Amino acid sequence: MNIHGGNIYDYKNIIFDFSANINPLGIPERFKEALYENIKMFTKYPDIEYKNLKNNINNYLGIYDNSYILVGNGEVELIYLLLENLEFNKLFTIGPTFSEYKKAVINSGIEYNEIYCYNDDFSEINVQMLLDKIQGKSIVILCNPNNPTGYLIDRPTLEVIASRLYEKQCILIIDEAFIEFTDNYPLSSFISKLQKYPNTIVLRAVTKFFGMPGIRLGYAVTYNKDIYQKIREVQQPWNINAAAVIAGNTVFNDKDYISKSQIWIKEERDFIYKGLSLVKGLRVYPSKANFHLLKLMFNDMDAYKLKDALVNYEILIRTPGGFPFLTSRHFRLAVLDRIANTSLLSALYDILGKEIP
Amino acid sequence: MNIHGGNIYDYKNIIFDFSANINPLGIPERFKEALYENIKMFTKYPDIEYKNLKNNINNYLGIYDNSYILVGNGEVELIYLLLENLEFNKLFTIGPTFSEYKKAVINSGIEYNEIYCYNDDFSEINVQMLLDKIQGKSIVILCNPNNPTGYLIDRPTLEVIASRLYEKQCILIIDEAFIEFTDNYPLSSFISKLQKYPNTIVLRAVTKFFGMPGIRLGYAVTYNKDIYQKIREVQQPWNINAAAVIAGNTVFNDKDYISKSQIWIKEERDFIYKGLSLVKGLRVYPSKANFHLLKLMFNDMDAYKLKDALVNYEILIRTPGGFPFLTSRHFRLAVLDRIANTSLLSALYDILGKEIP
Repeated sequence: MNIHGGNIYDYKNIIFDFSANINPLGIPERFKEALYENIKMFTKYPDIEYKNLKNNINNYLGIYDNSYILVGNGEVELIYLLLENLEFNKLFTIGPTFSEYKKAVINSGIEYNEIYCYNDDFSEINVQMLLDKIQGKSIVILCNPNNPTGYLIDRPTLEVIASRLYEKQCILIIDEAFIEFTDNYPLSSFISKLQKYPNTIVLRAVTKFFGMPGIRLGYAVTYNKDIYQKIREVQQPWNINAAAVIAGNTVFNDKDYISKSQIWIKEERDFIYKGLSLVKGLRVYPSKANFHLLKLMFNDMDAYKLKDALVNYEILIRTPGGFPFLTSRHFRLAVLDRIANTSLLSALYDILGKEIP
Repeated sequence: MNIHGGNIYDYKNIIFDFSANINPLGIPERFKEALYENIKMFTKYPDIEYKNLKNNINNYLGIYDNSYILVGNGEVELIYLLLENLEFNKLFTIGPTFSEYKKAVINSGIEYNEIYCYNDDFSEINVQMLLDKIQGKSIVILCNPNNPTGYLIDRPTLEVIASRLYEKQCILIIDEAFIEFTDNYPLSSFISKLQKYPNTIVLRAVTKFFGMPGIRLGYAVTYNKDIYQKIREVQQPWNINAAAVIAGNTVFNDKDYISKSQIWIKEERDFIYKGLSLVKGLRVYPSKANFHLLKLMFNDMDAYKLKDALVNYEILIRTPGGFPFLTSRHFRLAVLDRIANTSLLSALYDILGKEIP
């Protein structure tokens, strides 16, 4: 079984895939056009330095200074490269979180530590406890907002954490794969504060917000030249293919797609949260991201049984495999479009029942 | 400076890029059509197991048994993964050869050894010397046909090598990135003999023969389950993006493209070889691949000066940087189409002079 839960390729009849946290607006039109117009790019090796692509990332982030950009074959390539090459032998993160952090260090002999510091409904973390438990000279990786809890550490708190970790000679990696889905983006992002914290790296993904997990394009920003150079030395050449370069050169400028997505996430996160709150025996945790963590409260129902039941409704959900601190009663749902969200709510009311509001 | 010589992105006016060994017939039509028809594949994560893609590779290779296929983000990803994870601390290869083998092991503390066992015109290797110098329990990687010499080890000789290396408890990796350009393909390939040698892995690339270095798609075949599993454990998930999956699902069936390419390479390799043989003070080494290694014999001309001179003719060549055992007088030329090859020959006659045949 793979640690990423539902693999849609294992099912024949899924119409609504709530197991993957992807913008349902689909592929940005500008990418489609550009792919056709630039098909000749496939006949050449990509620029081994990816200069154009990095310029576009800088422009998108509003960075016009001496930052360093790394590009990856999906954000996951950068996670692996960083965790394997930073030459620290301990890693700390807040659990539950994205399972690839653990998988990335398993083979390199780095000690993996997940700190549980949430309150009961995943709406708060105990920062002091977190900082006390993190040992000096280690790597700290924080997914923000976090997968699967949807919890967002606000920027002032992140500054406190970055600063304290700097004193402890730790390296802080902030994984912002879902940051563009948060309400107050770009204020929620650490990018504009990064220059003050040379121990810190921000990771980002093109694939989730721009609805293209098939494109595989992630990037990292840091002001730490040593880290940048260390990763460049070990990184494979031509790791980003022509399709992903074309995507990176176009989607950041698709203002229409970006504004439509921002309107969609605000409306639908709220719509589905309210609808889920009416499902009998279901606890919905608050979320700042484009997904919700949920818990089944009835004794006779767990996430695996619910998944099987929902497959009959052509719906796939994310069971808790791979996430520590979650039980078999927890599951995760992406926020999709109104048709999908309505179909899901209707299926859940059917299977579990609906509270009278 | 990058070790891959001419980076076409550093030049504004290059029309004929002889520095990259790519089929000049361009992108297979079936890939273009399929890319447009399957654009929706970008909205989903790729199948984490790449089952369809692997089936297509098996069909292309004519393998219908218990082999194991690994797919990589370019062949170079598989080179890195194999060399870093096979747990041997010595690597042997025949020099000069592809520089990424060395780069892949530099950071992992593996001892890198290049054996020079060619005769004077790179038309023969001393197999006995090669086998004597290779130590037991090491990794051996052979590029076949070899970049940059164009030398092809025939299959009976490769069987002797594989068998002797098995006795020495070595792992043999045969890099067949250019094998489809050889005259007697598929007889030149080791694929059909692989089952007899469980210490052996064959690497292949989609990108060179199918004219798409921008697509990044390589694969490895082995009958060694342990090696397969070891690599799968450390490999990053979703390493092949949707565009590369679409390419792998279509180009192998493009019979028209394959047969046109086979006709082109036979004709043009011979055409350019004869033409190059008439350039004054230029030694052309024989080649079984889609490129030629050459040496400038005049004292006042080296490859870097020639490169600069040819840039004025809108032509880029591969200078010898990154290749051991070559001098500043060596360079490499891809075989391109008739228009390009004629333009190159005309420029070389202009710069260096032409022998009266």
